[in-house]
Amino acid sequence: MNVNGRPMRTIWLAEDRRSIEIIDQRLLPHELVIARLATLDDAARAIRDMAVRGAPLIGATAAYGVFLAVAADASDRALERAIEVLAATRPTAVNLRWALDDMHRALSPLPPGRRREAALARAAGIADADVATNQALGEHGLPLIEAARHRKHGDRVNILTHCNAGWLATVDWGTALAPVFRAHDAGIPVHVWVDETRPRNQGASLTAWELQQHGLPHTVIADNTGGHLMQYGMVDLVITGTDRTTATGDVANKIGTYLKALAARDNGIPFYVALPSSTIDWSLEDGRAIPIEQRDPREVTHIAGRTAAGERVEVRLTPEGSTAANYAFDVTPARLVNALITERGVCAASREGLLGLFPEQRDRGAA
Amino acid sequence: MNVNGRPMRTIWLAEDRRSIEIIDQRLLPHELVIARLATLDDAARAIRDMAVRGAPLIGATAAYGVFLAVAADASDRALERAIEVLAATRPTAVNLRWALDDMHRALSPLPPGRRREAALARAAGIADADVATNQALGEHGLPLIEAARHRKHGDRVNILTHCNAGWLATVDWGTALAPVFRAHDAGIPVHVWVDETRPRNQGASLTAWELQQHGLPHTVIADNTGGHLMQYGMVDLVITGTDRTTATGDVANKIGTYLKALAARDNGIPFYVALPSSTIDWSLEDGRAIPIEQRDPREVTHIAGRTAAGERVEVRLTPEGSTAANYAFDVTPARLVNALITERGVCAASREGLLGLFPEQRDRGAA
Repeated sequence: MNVNGRPMRTIWLAEDRRSIEIIDQRLLPHELVIARLATLDDAARAIRDMAVRGAPLIGATAAYGVFLAVAADASDRALERAIEVLAATRPTAVNLRWALDDMHRALSPLPPGRRREAALARAAGIADADVATNQALGEHGLPLIEAARHRKHGDRVNILTHCNAGWLATVDWGTALAPVFRAHDAGIPVHVWVDETRPRNQGASLTAWELQQHGLPHTVIADNTGGHLMQYGMVDLVITGTDRTTATGDVANKIGTYLKALAARDNGIPFYVALPSSTIDWSLEDGRAIPIEQRDPREVTHIAGRTAAGERVEVRLTPEGSTAANYAFDVTPARLVNALITERGVCAASREGLLGLFPEQRDRGAA
Repeated sequence: MNVNGRPMRTIWLAEDRRSIEIIDQRLLPHELVIARLATLDDAARAIRDMAVRGAPLIGATAAYGVFLAVAADASDRALERAIEVLAATRPTAVNLRWALDDMHRALSPLPPGRRREAALARAAGIADADVATNQALGEHGLPLIEAARHRKHGDRVNILTHCNAGWLATVDWGTALAPVFRAHDAGIPVHVWVDETRPRNQGASLTAWELQQHGLPHTVIADNTGGHLMQYGMVDLVITGTDRTTATGDVANKIGTYLKALAARDNGIPFYVALPSSTIDWSLEDGRAIPIEQRDPREVTHIAGRTAAGERVEVRLTPEGSTAANYAFDVTPARLVNALITERGVCAASREGLLGLFPEQRDRGAA
């Protein structure tokens, strides 16, 4: 999507064709800093310290990390070590593991002399495949926004989103925001209500920044606000992403998603979830079985921002002596989801809906 | 309630019996500063600049402000001017207007020479009446907490609250928190989930502070978290306050209350609202008729806290160029409220429920 009027991805091969460049997302929304990754350790650090985040982007960064490693040392031992180092950066990230397995399968049969070019091609392929998947989400989601516009007789469509499932979480386009960018670029008047998404504020810092850079009208709101907006007809549809989807259509997404789904249902507003099929866990029947990560309470008690003088400062919000809890995700049951938007099309949030688009998974159930 | 182990109110007559002392709430939770109000202007400034907040406390402060004014000049002109100056500080606060009318009615018939002592007695009476009302809320709410404890076979009762409807919003005891303090003081094991309550963070800064000072177990959470906690059986009941209640039991309270009421209903958890009957607007049939205040978007885009060095700093959270919206309240429809806790007892959130406790209002409907 555009930054300062020019198209940009979140990760790309540098002009020297020997290093990788990324947007250092820790400094957004206040500063756009491009960081250079020249070594395996640079790539591992970028993932571990969350200079890059979002499952698809983590996968692409890990793939490029393998390229950087074999470019320096193409031996079997170096390849194995690279996989190991990168896998340890975010142990629970499913896409990370998947991308590393893919790189390993592609490179280990090759003689060391051919690994560098093969690694670059494969990593670029993983990045391009992510972009293609997200573009497909955009195409399939577009008619849902067009339908909302039709219901409004051509008026501006107001879309509420939670967290950041935009292009910054992927290589380009994003998941939940892909249909929104697609609609905007097609000339449909859209406006996004951006949940700030406490405690890490991915909405206020990342979603707001990427929409603003792309020139897409948006308004940041406290997470408490969506219900009121829906009661007063100020939201036409909700689109969020998901970190993990069960075979029955339950979605685990950023904490607070469930509350918005409840409000959408109470007000008759469609609630959509956009996802690459790689987030579907076909072995899971019930979202309540998804373990919910608890993160550092400091993310609740402290917050970082920029002072009027331009300095980045972290401040404490709570009294000394008060504890905090920090559950990172919640599960929205399929009954509250009007439809899932996947790279193969739109379907009901149910086993039958998903199997209609992914019939090859039927065998799994029969086994 | 207790501060540092000693009972304290939010406002009291100073030892010199000529000035008033308050807690300057703008500096909480990081610093407990007692401010002295010696003149009418001091009192007006304390209300206007939100050193005191919460409808009952604003009313009491205004009453003491009239005392400070007539202590300096007991003439008719000075009395009228005091009422005028204080009424202008927070033009929409209902309790403020009510307290000023009460003071005016009590003082204007008196000869100037008797006004000072009468004003002091009346202001103290308004403050004491608030405490008595809130104690009654505590008594009537206590059985609801005891019932939850019974359902849990004596285990700790987990109560979720939103915003600050504790003693800092009143003269003492609070509204929503009065039953919680009462239960804790009676030896019932209670624990409070404190919604931080963006954008002004009254939960993280005020509710957390007053619970911590009173030694009442609590945990601060992002506003997004309550739904997840309810899904996993970690909340036994919800109690909130209300800024305005319709004759049919709809409640306008801090933005985000509606989302918690939806989650409570979806999980079969009782949702209670505690209120002094002064918040009931007997002329209103439908909560949707309540105008919702929009406040400065800067409350969303910026936040203040304390640095590690102990300095109070305000930081920007959103990108330059992104706008924000700041709706201060939302309306929770009566159908989502399990019961109202008033100073006369507990009733259904309905016209019949309220009229059962306030039969003198029946005439109003018949008129």
